[in-house]
Parts: sequence; C-alpha cells; structure tokens
Amino acid sequence: MPLNRIINDPDDVAAEALAGIVAAHPDLVITTPHARVFRAVQPVTNRVGIVTGGGSGHEPAFIGFVGPGLVDAVATGEVFASPTARAFEAAFKAADGGRGVACLYGNYAGDNMNVKMAVKLAERDGLTVKTVVANDDAASAPKDQIGKRRGVAGEVLMWKAGAALAAEGADLDAVIGVAQKAIDSTRSVGIGLSACTIPAAGKPNFTIEPGMMEVGIGHHGEPGVAVMPVKPAREMAALMLDTILPDLPFGRGEDVAVLLSGLGATPVMELYILYTHVAEILAAHGLTIRHRFVGNYFTSLEMMGASITLTRLDGELDRLIGKPARSIGLTVPGA
Amino acid sequence: MPLNRIINDPDDVAAEALAGIVAAHPDLVITTPHARVFRAVQPVTNRVGIVTGGGSGHEPAFIGFVGPGLVDAVATGEVFASPTARAFEAAFKAADGGRGVACLYGNYAGDNMNVKMAVKLAERDGLTVKTVVANDDAASAPKDQIGKRRGVAGEVLMWKAGAALAAEGADLDAVIGVAQKAIDSTRSVGIGLSACTIPAAGKPNFTIEPGMMEVGIGHHGEPGVAVMPVKPAREMAALMLDTILPDLPFGRGEDVAVLLSGLGATPVMELYILYTHVAEILAAHGLTIRHRFVGNYFTSLEMMGASITLTRLDGELDRLIGKPARSIGLTVPGA
Repeated sequence: MPLNRIINDPDDVAAEALAGIVAAHPDLVITTPHARVFRAVQPVTNRVGIVTGGGSGHEPAFIGFVGPGLVDAVATGEVFASPTARAFEAAFKAADGGRGVACLYGNYAGDNMNVKMAVKLAERDGLTVKTVVANDDAASAPKDQIGKRRGVAGEVLMWKAGAALAAEGADLDAVIGVAQKAIDSTRSVGIGLSACTIPAAGKPNFTIEPGMMEVGIGHHGEPGVAVMPVKPAREMAALMLDTILPDLPFGRGEDVAVLLSGLGATPVMELYILYTHVAEILAAHGLTIRHRFVGNYFTSLEMMGASITLTRLDGELDRLIGKPARSIGLTVPGA
Repeated sequence: MPLNRIINDPDDVAAEALAGIVAAHPDLVITTPHARVFRAVQPVTNRVGIVTGGGSGHEPAFIGFVGPGLVDAVATGEVFASPTARAFEAAFKAADGGRGVACLYGNYAGDNMNVKMAVKLAERDGLTVKTVVANDDAASAPKDQIGKRRGVAGEVLMWKAGAALAAEGADLDAVIGVAQKAIDSTRSVGIGLSACTIPAAGKPNFTIEPGMMEVGIGHHGEPGVAVMPVKPAREMAALMLDTILPDLPFGRGEDVAVLLSGLGATPVMELYILYTHVAEILAAHGLTIRHRFVGNYFTSLEMMGASITLTRLDGELDRLIGKPARSIGLTVPGA
C-alpha cells in the first residue's frame, strides 16, 4: 500500500470518498436508493436526462460532474472498476424525466458490457436510453482503430455539450447527436510522471522509474506510446500536442476548447506552467482558444502528470460549452 | 531538484506559473504595470479595495483568489518568499477605488516588514491602507503567544468576509473590523505526509520519512508539534481537530465554516475521505457546518497532506461567507 495516504481501510476508499463528497456538497449531489448511484438535487423534469458512470479513483470524475447544466445521475464503481449493470440501470431511472436518457460514458470493456446490459433492463421498464461512447485518448490506439481508443478527460466536454443541449429542451436524438459530435471533435493525451497504486491491491500494477515519463499513458496506467527521461515543461507540451493536433486534425483558423487536467498528485502550479506552453503552441498553430479549463478534472489516484484535451468547436459546441453549469469539478458562471 | 515535475528552469517556476494563470483566466485576473502584481478585471470604484500577497508555491493562493467578491489586487513573490514592498505598494494602488485599501495578509516576517514599508510609501501618496495580519495556524505557537502564530488557509475566509463587506459599500474601518473578526474566529492546522522542494534550492529543507506524518507542519515545512507513524484518516481528523477545537475554543451549538485544503500532491479523493471524519467529529461536538470547502486552496508545492480550517460564525460572518464570489480558487454561486 502506498505510504503517506489519507485513507482508512484500503478496501473502503471508494465508498468513503463518495460519502465525503455527498457530505461536503449537499447542494449539488444526493444519494439514491442504490448505494453507488448519486443524482443532482434538482430532479429531471420534461427534458432528456444525462447519465455517466465509471470507476472511482478519478475524482472529481465522475460524481463531481453532477449538477445543474451537467450530469443528472452517475453510477460509480470501486477503484478503477466499472459500475455494475444494476448501478447504471438505477442511474438511468434516477435521471428519467419522461423524455429519455443519454448515457455518455468512456470506452472500457467493463463499462461497455454493463451499460449495454443496463440499457436492456431499462428498456424492459419502458425507459428509452441511448448512448455515446467516448474514445478521445489519441494515444490509446491508431486512428484506423479509433473504436479501440479509450475515453479520458474529453468526457467532461462531451457531458457539458450534451447536458447544455438537454437543458434547452432538445430531444434525445439531438442530445445524443451533439454529444457524439463533441467527442468526435475531441482528442486527449496524457503524460505520466509517477505510477499509482490501487489501495486494495497494495502495490502499483505498473512502474514509471524516477526521472522518467510516459507519454500516452492511460487513466489506469495503461501503457503509453513512449517512455523517456523527464523533459522540460515546454517540451512536454510539444510532445503531447504533436500527438493530438495532427490526429483529428486541428487546422489553422479553427476555434478550440482546452482542458488541462492534473492526474492527481501534480501541484496546481505545474499545471499552469504547462498551460502557458499549450497556449503558445496552439497560437502558433493558428488555433483560437475559446474556452480553457485548468485543474484536477479527471485524475488517477496519486499519479503525477497531466492530460491535455482539445475540442474543435463549431458555433453550436462553442455556445453549449459556454452555457452556465455548476458542479464540484466544473463551474461555468451564471448557474 | 525533485524528479517528475512539470517545470522548465527551476529559477523561473513562479513567473511561469503566474503567466499561465493569467493566460488561462483572462476573465478573472489581469496584469498591471508591476510584473509581480495582478488585479481583478473589474477596477475598484467607490468602495474599499482588498489586497493580499505572499510567496508563490501555494497556488491557487494567492493570485487565484482575485475576482468578483474576493481579492482586488495581489502582490506575488518568488517561491516561498515575500513580495517586495514595492510590489505591495503597487497592489495597493491597483486596488484603490477612492475609499482606502484593506491589506489582509499572513503573519510572516518578510510580509510584515514589506507590508509596513509599503503602507508608508502609499500613505505618502495620499492612499489610506489598513491591515489585518492572519495568525490562524493554531500549532505554530502557544495560545498565549498568539501574535507569533502564522497565517495559513484561514486567510481565504478572512478575504471572503472582508471582500463581501467591501462589496456592500462599508467603509475601511468596518472592512478591517470584519476581517479581523473573521481571522480571530478562525483556527487551522496542517498535517504533512511528505516534504516539498523549492525548485531553485534543489533539495528539501526538511524531511518527512516515508510512513511518517508531521502534525502541525507549516506551509513552508516549518516544524510541527509531533511526528508519528501515518494514522488512518479518522485518527488524523481527530488529532487535527483536537488541536483546534479547544484552542478558540469552539463550543456546542455554534455555527462554523470548514475549509479543508490539500497541500499540493494529495489526491482529491483523500481530501473527501478526511472530510467525512471532520464532519462526523464536528457533529459529535455539537457544531453545525454552515459552509464547507474541500479542495486545493492553499498548497505547499508538492507536499502531501492537508490542512483543516474552522471559522466560528456569527450572523454577519455567516452571511458574508455565503455571498457570491468568483475566482480560480473559490466560487460561491451567484457571482
């Protein structure tokens, strides 16, 4: 088990962190009859409901994005483990306002399996659920195998866009369409500077040697595309953007949203040093940053490092990302 | 120098982080003619201005609390080093809206000296500046030497209260009075789980052995009151609250605000585990939590650990802390 942690029993960290979040934010997120499902305070009424879900250890994701203008209900799992099908089903019901539910989640085997099962269970009860599977991690598979790519911090902007359109009263197909467009327009890449340990496992299931960094690392320590000595921040930014800019590709004159997330144990100060270089490189590339988010949005326990997410914006995505929202993880003024 | 950092030249981290913050939040904080002074976008007009300042390495403090309903201008220093007197003076001028300036800062030798000098410089130019010196760190000196105590994360709630009263149009003496009341009603304590390294120094100026924790540690690694093996989160919470509850003291039936801050490298998940126990103990102590803030508010580079801050609330402080504010570090909805 990692030293220097603020935990009790290593088997209880997910449940205890979730309980703490609910205790700390009673104005944003409340419990439901299902112990691992949480919902926004305001119930969904006569609009499409937004659901997501995933394993714990990525805080504030996923529960921290529940709130006005964002996610309506969330299914949570143990550390780095998918929520159950029953949990997803319960989240669908908790987000049902009579006009269907959009389940916007990440491309992991367990989540795919359990969401599919949950959709069937919900449909038996007369609830319509449609899904978008995020696959924004550009380093996780070649572009011609885009369906194999994992979902990472780009999910935040997918939720934001889908939820903002749902709030405007759009129907389920339109909400699904805009969430799909958001994630199709998004690329992310991570860089790991230290490993992390699932508390209940007691030791890391991967290693990053001191002084080394891993480009393209996944949110659970999945292998990246290159391991090399730690570079200065400006070279890290260049390496990361070299992965994602040509992949979509992002072209001169386009508008983008940038989300730069710490992986858990990297200080806030360093995220802003990295941001400076991201902004410089994007400007040199002829891109205009319309929305910027820097902080801990999608973490991996105590991993050091950061991820960069870029979303290409058309007028609709630009408008939806700028709409008011309020949650633990992301607040856009006005809500 | 610590490995696994996202930095360039170790001598440039403060300047580069500040530049990144300004680049990432043009809606909140802008530059001034003084390179180390930053101010809110909206100039101060016909009300008291709120200024703070301090060393870098505590991000989002101090610059991250500039914004509507919070700090108007901030003087920043190198990592863990006081801003200069000229920087404080420039911050006073940047926050001058014709009704005087309240400088609300922490009790450190360099800050005390430079603020005093800056106040004299500003007064020569006809600007009235009054000060409140935060000394909320209960572990930093005995209660009968309260003037020797350091200011830590309690400063955030002092700024919040003073700024909210200034926004209502109160005069300088009233703003100073409420900021003094806020800090006099506040106690904080930190617990360190790992050391931190000033990048330009290249090695830690203190040590916390793996598996050990230091109760009462300061925000620059100043020695605490006890070093012991790492305890479960619930015992950490009890130890920390045993330090601050009897010190004010906080009595049954009182209302409090809680601010729980990570020290930089402790994951968000663990802060919420700690919060659960803080809430339990405060409830058992007969205290009602009226405002709660959990996150990275006042950090110490890549130190692992957390601080707990409690403020006893009368009706006025309760009202002022609940008023809208918007900044990188703290947002209260409505602004």
